[in-house]
Amino acid sequence: MKKNINIAIVGLGQIGGYLYSEINKKKKDIEVKTGKRINIVALSAKNINKTRKFKLNKKIFFKNPLDIIYKCKVDILFEVIGLADGISKKVVEHALKNKVHVITPNKALISKHGDNLSKLAEKNQVNLEFEASVAGGIPIIRTIKEGLATNKITKIYGILNGTCNYILSSMEKDNASFKNSLKRAQILGYAEPKNPKLDLNGHDAFAKIRILSALSFNNKISKKNCLLEGIEKIDLKDIKISDQLGFRIKLLGISEIKDGKLFERVHPCLVKKDSYIGNVNGVMNAVITEGSPVGESIFQGEGAGPGPTSSALMSDFLSILRGNIKFPFGLPSHKRKNVNVYNFNNYVNYLYFRFEVRDKPGVLSQITNSLAKNKISVQRLIQIPNKNNTASIIIISHKSIEANAQSCITNLSKNKNILKIPTIIRLL
Amino acid sequence: MKKNINIAIVGLGQIGGYLYSEINKKKKDIEVKTGKRINIVALSAKNINKTRKFKLNKKIFFKNPLDIIYKCKVDILFEVIGLADGISKKVVEHALKNKVHVITPNKALISKHGDNLSKLAEKNQVNLEFEASVAGGIPIIRTIKEGLATNKITKIYGILNGTCNYILSSMEKDNASFKNSLKRAQILGYAEPKNPKLDLNGHDAFAKIRILSALSFNNKISKKNCLLEGIEKIDLKDIKISDQLGFRIKLLGISEIKDGKLFERVHPCLVKKDSYIGNVNGVMNAVITEGSPVGESIFQGEGAGPGPTSSALMSDFLSILRGNIKFPFGLPSHKRKNVNVYNFNNYVNYLYFRFEVRDKPGVLSQITNSLAKNKISVQRLIQIPNKNNTASIIIISHKSIEANAQSCITNLSKNKNILKIPTIIRLL
Repeated sequence: MKKNINIAIVGLGQIGGYLYSEINKKKKDIEVKTGKRINIVALSAKNINKTRKFKLNKKIFFKNPLDIIYKCKVDILFEVIGLADGISKKVVEHALKNKVHVITPNKALISKHGDNLSKLAEKNQVNLEFEASVAGGIPIIRTIKEGLATNKITKIYGILNGTCNYILSSMEKDNASFKNSLKRAQILGYAEPKNPKLDLNGHDAFAKIRILSALSFNNKISKKNCLLEGIEKIDLKDIKISDQLGFRIKLLGISEIKDGKLFERVHPCLVKKDSYIGNVNGVMNAVITEGSPVGESIFQGEGAGPGPTSSALMSDFLSILRGNIKFPFGLPSHKRKNVNVYNFNNYVNYLYFRFEVRDKPGVLSQITNSLAKNKISVQRLIQIPNKNNTASIIIISHKSIEANAQSCITNLSKNKNILKIPTIIRLL
Repeated sequence: MKKNINIAIVGLGQIGGYLYSEINKKKKDIEVKTGKRINIVALSAKNINKTRKFKLNKKIFFKNPLDIIYKCKVDILFEVIGLADGISKKVVEHALKNKVHVITPNKALISKHGDNLSKLAEKNQVNLEFEASVAGGIPIIRTIKEGLATNKITKIYGILNGTCNYILSSMEKDNASFKNSLKRAQILGYAEPKNPKLDLNGHDAFAKIRILSALSFNNKISKKNCLLEGIEKIDLKDIKISDQLGFRIKLLGISEIKDGKLFERVHPCLVKKDSYIGNVNGVMNAVITEGSPVGESIFQGEGAGPGPTSSALMSDFLSILRGNIKFPFGLPSHKRKNVNVYNFNNYVNYLYFRFEVRDKPGVLSQITNSLAKNKISVQRLIQIPNKNNTASIIIISHKSIEANAQSCITNLSKNKNILKIPTIIRLL
């Protein structure tokens, strides 16, 4: 690689702006570490006139980011727009086709188009790096691809969404409702002010777990349906009862090989209060890998925000500058296995049920009958009287089959004495 | 780099033997990931006839490892003997001078001669990799050099010796004496059967913290005296009292920049039971970094044993095969700063004292007088009566100066009513 390296940054929002300042600030440090001289030769964003924390050099500003590759001699392009398709995809494809290395924190893009983009990068012998797409402050992608390179990973899971973890922690700590905790998260900048849905419904964590499983198990990125639930239905009541039972509720992303098949899922989990994962609170992210011969490894760090994200983008940057040319997913695309998906209906696990019922004779028996019919046996049962002649019934089951639990819930949801669709939370 | 890569392994003990099998087992996997074909062309060990778990190919065995470089065309050499000097140093120097990449888990060698070996590697444009020298199952060296490359790290600390952590955990869990816990650790293979001293006295952890600080703070490896204490003086009594006070005792390695100077230390610490580090038990290792902009990052994994060590050696191996040529300490030797050491006598901290005393009037006042003279003020005091008219006095101080605490101890050690040299444990 030559000595002078030309950089383009496309997208100058919170992350892109921070990155721009970081690169400028650390140019000398980078030159010492890699021997390369860095020049930022092109910038692009939706709005040139937006108020920004840094002074925008308008001479190198491009309205249309696709023009950059033609008009400048760019070596490395940062895509920091963040769309799953559209201009994000176009810019990245365009760069790779023209033998420009690409670095992006865009999990939506990578989890959707990572396979094709990866082929494109390999064909053109450039890097496509996406360390910042999962758990910014934890260099987990580099760790799987390099640090644990020859291990056989059998399971990878963790807390991959800081917003959800903050809300769940705050509900417990401050005895606050879901709604109020969400509001506070929005005020503190931990949740999107306008549309926090993608965080709360688990889609964000799911994109991340898909990237992690492709890396861990050497398969293509799965496009199949999976067990996906967010935290919107978690009630303060669930948090309090879990607490009494020695559990905390965490939104986990989990991927493992089960019966030789890929089992990916994102859902709230009851985890033991004295477990490691039960003590990762606030906006922190954590990833746990189980591999052979390395054993269990745990990684924890800040998940999002400009600082951690920029740290990850810069590590990709230095990796390219050192000439560390790699396959984006650790091995050649044609060697990555096709996905063979585990049928999650067969999943067997301990379950937590909460039923909101009319407090009258026979209701408990209707519930336990339906459970028995579905071969769900009760391990613990708590009934708590509420106002207005209603009660909450909480059951922790012995190991039960997912499909049976769903059919039990469907069946009981029709019962007039059961006032809401029952809540199920899986135990880890 | 050419397609066919020749390997030599020098040292065929527990680690070397495991590595040899791993490389043979994963040859194909490595070829897929890196495009390189691996040939093990030379082996060397002290004793050719020792009973080993694998079949030794005697045709490629060398009695004198220094002959290997002359007689075979070796590209990468694994040094797995483990001495701080002697043949380990000779083999590594010899290899580097002849433009052979070196991979080693040898913390004693690296912490002692890493600076010179690193210069030699740079001069000859080959890699010197030592991921396995610190916390085998945690790719912490790669993480500092690459994953957190442009962060400004201000502190790095953790549990770096699994043997000590196992013994301390087992004393608490099983209510066992230091001696019995050590015995069990030896039976389980967690402590050296013949001479466990280097683990217990903190020297092993110290070698590791020196490597980590050189990487984190971009300075040369310190050779200066430092705060170094092992766990040999920790009594079951200390574990129990700490427990009552809400603490656990952990042997920590800590390195930080204090007043612009390097402050490295290894000693037992009282850590809060509900802290992250207080819950890393058994043979696990953990490393915590504080950096900007990334924030706090936590890494946990198995510290030693052939599996985790081999995982680390293999990650170095693949890194070289991918052509990821790097400065051993992340930047050129001549850019690494000279060490400016913090005077640990000035260190200010909360302290735990345990005095074993004759239970008679005036003794407590002698202790508190000496504390007062040394400007050590008492935060908590517990007196426990023992057999034979003796008592244990436990004091937790407010923030106190290290030198004052030492002078207080020296002074009180002369007191005939104080039956043993008092124990000091620092709070984290």
